[in-house]
Amino acid sequence: MLMVLEKEDKLILITNDDGLYAAGLRTLLEVMEEFGKVVLVSTIESMSGMSQALTVKTPLRVKLLEDSDKRRVYNCNGTPTDSIKLAVNQLLERKPDWVVSGINHGSNASVSVLYSGTMAAALEGCLYGINSVGFSLNDISRTPDFSVCKKYIRVVMQKISSESLPSGVCLNVNIPAIPENEIKGIKICRQARGSWKEEFDKRKDPMGRSYYWLTGLFENQEPDANDTDEWAIENGYVSVVPVTVDMTAHWYIGNLKSQFGL
Amino acid sequence: MLMVLEKEDKLILITNDDGLYAAGLRTLLEVMEEFGKVVLVSTIESMSGMSQALTVKTPLRVKLLEDSDKRRVYNCNGTPTDSIKLAVNQLLERKPDWVVSGINHGSNASVSVLYSGTMAAALEGCLYGINSVGFSLNDISRTPDFSVCKKYIRVVMQKISSESLPSGVCLNVNIPAIPENEIKGIKICRQARGSWKEEFDKRKDPMGRSYYWLTGLFENQEPDANDTDEWAIENGYVSVVPVTVDMTAHWYIGNLKSQFGL
Repeated sequence: MLMVLEKEDKLILITNDDGLYAAGLRTLLEVMEEFGKVVLVSTIESMSGMSQALTVKTPLRVKLLEDSDKRRVYNCNGTPTDSIKLAVNQLLERKPDWVVSGINHGSNASVSVLYSGTMAAALEGCLYGINSVGFSLNDISRTPDFSVCKKYIRVVMQKISSESLPSGVCLNVNIPAIPENEIKGIKICRQARGSWKEEFDKRKDPMGRSYYWLTGLFENQEPDANDTDEWAIENGYVSVVPVTVDMTAHWYIGNLKSQFGL
Repeated sequence: MLMVLEKEDKLILITNDDGLYAAGLRTLLEVMEEFGKVVLVSTIESMSGMSQALTVKTPLRVKLLEDSDKRRVYNCNGTPTDSIKLAVNQLLERKPDWVVSGINHGSNASVSVLYSGTMAAALEGCLYGINSVGFSLNDISRTPDFSVCKKYIRVVMQKISSESLPSGVCLNVNIPAIPENEIKGIKICRQARGSWKEEFDKRKDPMGRSYYWLTGLFENQEPDANDTDEWAIENGYVSVVPVTVDMTAHWYIGNLKSQFGL
C-alpha cells in the first residue's frame, strides 16, 4: 500500500450506492481530497434502494483498483453497508475520521432515508462512532450537475470537523438542484412525514407471464411544515437532518404501557 | 380467488424474511388464523439481513401457491418490503387490518432492527397506516421451538386490536427462548444502545483468491439499563418496543443549529 498516514492526516472513508462510475461520487471524491487521504470502497454496479442490507448468503470479494499516497479505490461486491463494515474491519490501517457517502443521484429526504443505501452507509459509520454524513442531490434527471454541491459539502464537513457528532447520530444532507446563487443557505431540519404511493407497472413477458416494475410517487403529508427537510429543499435551502440509529418511538412508550395495562 | 371477505372479517397480511418454509412463519400463520383471514406473501429462499431494501433493477414476480377461503399464499421473488408493497397495491382486495411479520429465527432487539427484513416489513406496513408488528424468537439454534411464542403473539395482537397504533409506529416484539412457564411477562422497552463487532472470516477459494464471510458478535453498550429490550430478553421478559419511521434525532436539532451558527 502506498498511502502513508501521518498523525495529522484525516483518513476519510467514502462510499455510495450509485456505483464507482457515478458522477456524484467523483464530485464527492474531489472535495474530500481537499480535507485528507481518501479510501473509496464501492461497487461497479449501482446498489440503489438497498437500505441497510447485509450480504450473508454469498461471500464478499474486494479488489484494489487504484493505489496512491492520496487515494485508494476498492471495488467490493457487497452493499454500501457491507463496504463500510469491510473497510473499517479489514481494509483500513486505522479507524477513519469520517465516513462520507454519496453524492446520491436523487433526494433522500423524508422517509427515503429508510430505503437509502447512501444513508445506510452513514448510519453504519456512526454505529462505529465515526463522524458520518450522507449527501444527496435532489435531481433524478439523466445527467445532473453535481458541482452545485461542492460549496455545501465543504461547509458541512468544516462544521463536523470543529465539533464531533454524538455517537449514533449522522447527518442526512439534501441539496436542491438549482443554480448555486439561488440556494438560500443551510437549514437544520427534521424528517418530513410522508410516504411513497406505489404504482406498479404490470407487464407481460414474451412467454405471456406477468411481472411488475416498482415505481412510485412521493407524497409529502405536511407540505406547509417549514421545519422539515422536504420544505427546505422545495424552498431553495440545503436541508441537514440529524439522523439517529435509535428507532424507538420514545414519546409513545407511556401510552403503550397503559394500553398493555403495565 | 376463493376468499370471501365479510365486513367483520379481519384481513391479515403476513410475511417474513426466513422464507415460506420457515417454522416460525408456520407458527405465526397458525395463530393468525384464529383472528381472521390471512394472505401470506414471502419468498422461497430466506431474505435475512435485507433491511428495508427494494428491488428496482429486476422485475418482481408473484405466484399463487395456495387459495382457499381462509388462507391465500403467494411466492414473491422480492424482499420483505417488496412483498408488503406488492400485496397492498396489487394482491389484496382491500387494505389489510394488520401486517404481521415473523416469527424471525433470531432476535431483532437493539440495533438489529436496522438490518432486519422482518422489522422492515412491519415498518412498511405502518407507513401505509396499517397496524403492524414484527415478532422474533431469541434463538439461533438449528431447530428452535417457536410454540413458546404463541401465547404472547395472541396477547400483543389483542392489545393492538382494541386500540390502534399511531401512524408511522409499529411494534418490535422479541421473545426469549425459555420454557413458557419461566417467561415473566411483557415489558414495554426502548431499543438498547449496542453495536455489532464484526469478525470477518477471510478464506481462499480453490483458485487462491481471497473472499470474506461476514460474521459478528453483538455488544450491548448498556447491559444494566432495565428499560431496554436487551435487558428484558436477558431477564426472561418478552420485550415490546414501539418503533418509528421518523429517524430524526430531535433532541440534537438545537445543538446542531448552534454548531452551524443558525
